[in-house]
Amino acid sequence: MEMDKLIEKLTEEIYKKVLGEIQKTGSFDSIPVSTPSGGDRGLASMIDHTLLKPDATVEDVKKVCEEAKQYGFASVCINPGYVPLAVQTLRGSNVKTCTVIGFPLGATTTKTKVEETKEALENGAKEIDMVINVGALKSGDIDLVKNDIEEVVIAAKGRGIVKVIIETCLLTDDEKVKACTIAKAAGADFVKTSTGFSTGGATVEDIKLMREVVGPDMGVKASGGIRDYETAMAMINAGANRIGASASVAIVNKQKTSKKGY
Amino acid sequence: MEMDKLIEKLTEEIYKKVLGEIQKTGSFDSIPVSTPSGGDRGLASMIDHTLLKPDATVEDVKKVCEEAKQYGFASVCINPGYVPLAVQTLRGSNVKTCTVIGFPLGATTTKTKVEETKEALENGAKEIDMVINVGALKSGDIDLVKNDIEEVVIAAKGRGIVKVIIETCLLTDDEKVKACTIAKAAGADFVKTSTGFSTGGATVEDIKLMREVVGPDMGVKASGGIRDYETAMAMINAGANRIGASASVAIVNKQKTSKKGY
Repeated sequence: MEMDKLIEKLTEEIYKKVLGEIQKTGSFDSIPVSTPSGGDRGLASMIDHTLLKPDATVEDVKKVCEEAKQYGFASVCINPGYVPLAVQTLRGSNVKTCTVIGFPLGATTTKTKVEETKEALENGAKEIDMVINVGALKSGDIDLVKNDIEEVVIAAKGRGIVKVIIETCLLTDDEKVKACTIAKAAGADFVKTSTGFSTGGATVEDIKLMREVVGPDMGVKASGGIRDYETAMAMINAGANRIGASASVAIVNKQKTSKKGY
Repeated sequence: MEMDKLIEKLTEEIYKKVLGEIQKTGSFDSIPVSTPSGGDRGLASMIDHTLLKPDATVEDVKKVCEEAKQYGFASVCINPGYVPLAVQTLRGSNVKTCTVIGFPLGATTTKTKVEETKEALENGAKEIDMVINVGALKSGDIDLVKNDIEEVVIAAKGRGIVKVIIETCLLTDDEKVKACTIAKAAGADFVKTSTGFSTGGATVEDIKLMREVVGPDMGVKASGGIRDYETAMAMINAGANRIGASASVAIVNKQKTSKKGY
């Protein structure tokens, strides 16, 4: 009888765990070797743990990868040069490697963005956060803005998802609506507020507006200046389903941090 | 007799003008259709008139190109997406098109920097301002830093000059020396202090140090935070032979400007 109870209990626990993983990943394939622990797990699975400062070292990148594994963040978001290192360090976990394209100005050519995307995917990145051509949007060249996104989406097709950074702090509300509409029409997976390198970050108002424009089926990522649990939750309540942050550990542990980071 | 005097005077004037152009450009080929006027001409010919903010419009770029023609700046420095427009607008002048590669973080891959450089040159850029991989330098990966520069230098060979942005504000003095030494060894034409997008710009001390390291035959470009004539001249007196600035018109006209720009 004791043995029966033990089997029943074990079955139930394993079932719950496997079911959770299937819901999280969509398949049995990638049940993690390492199991996240600590912090707000639900929130952690919505966070891209981000380190984009230009002077980040190999050790810094390894550290954020280890943190991402420990807390079960959605991804680690690092610059393209560090994609191979992140992919290698994250092996055996469900944490994806995310990188940034045409970052942070978005002012390079479409061709360069496409080549950069292809190389990142070949190196193992699964999430591509590209910056729109803000200057073209401001100049009224909608075709350029749309084609720029479309080419990156085509390059990533079947290999990774594309998030489109519209850099809200530089845009009028009208331009924000246009940028989101174009990103959706171009087939991107997410719209994202900010690079974290410009004059401002995510706001609740912008997230509400972006969610309203793209509807319920597209992703909305809030990034830039999110440094505590309350702000992260405010973004999610406003309609975000992904958070970009460098203070991710403090956020899921509901700690305060005054450190500004990328 | 009057005719003889006139001929003599004309010959002398034309000779001086042509000689000036040869000294400036190295050949007869590109004697400008438009002739610069106004401001400090000597200083103007050492300035890269710069507009790198991500929200710069087509009109903004055209404006800086017209200013560059008017004042005789060395180049117009714009983001890669605007190279074709700048080349077209600067046609018929001696002003070169300069663009930025791996900018401003320097944290993308060598392959992307090389592809971006090639495309910029194909589009007509003559000057390539690339950012070093700061993270690799900080991680002690000298080979990566050197190869990164070398590949861009090779891509530009015979088609354009390469300036290497070391982003002084993020480096220790020891790292500044290393970065300059590597840039020189990699065959670059200039070392350059700053992107203008990080925590600081050019200082007189850094220019002195960089000039000391690279010697008299390599170029040294001071950029970031240079917004008046006095600062520009201080950089030149410290050893710079090129200035990057957005306040170039105010600088050559010896006007004060409080506006921060890129």
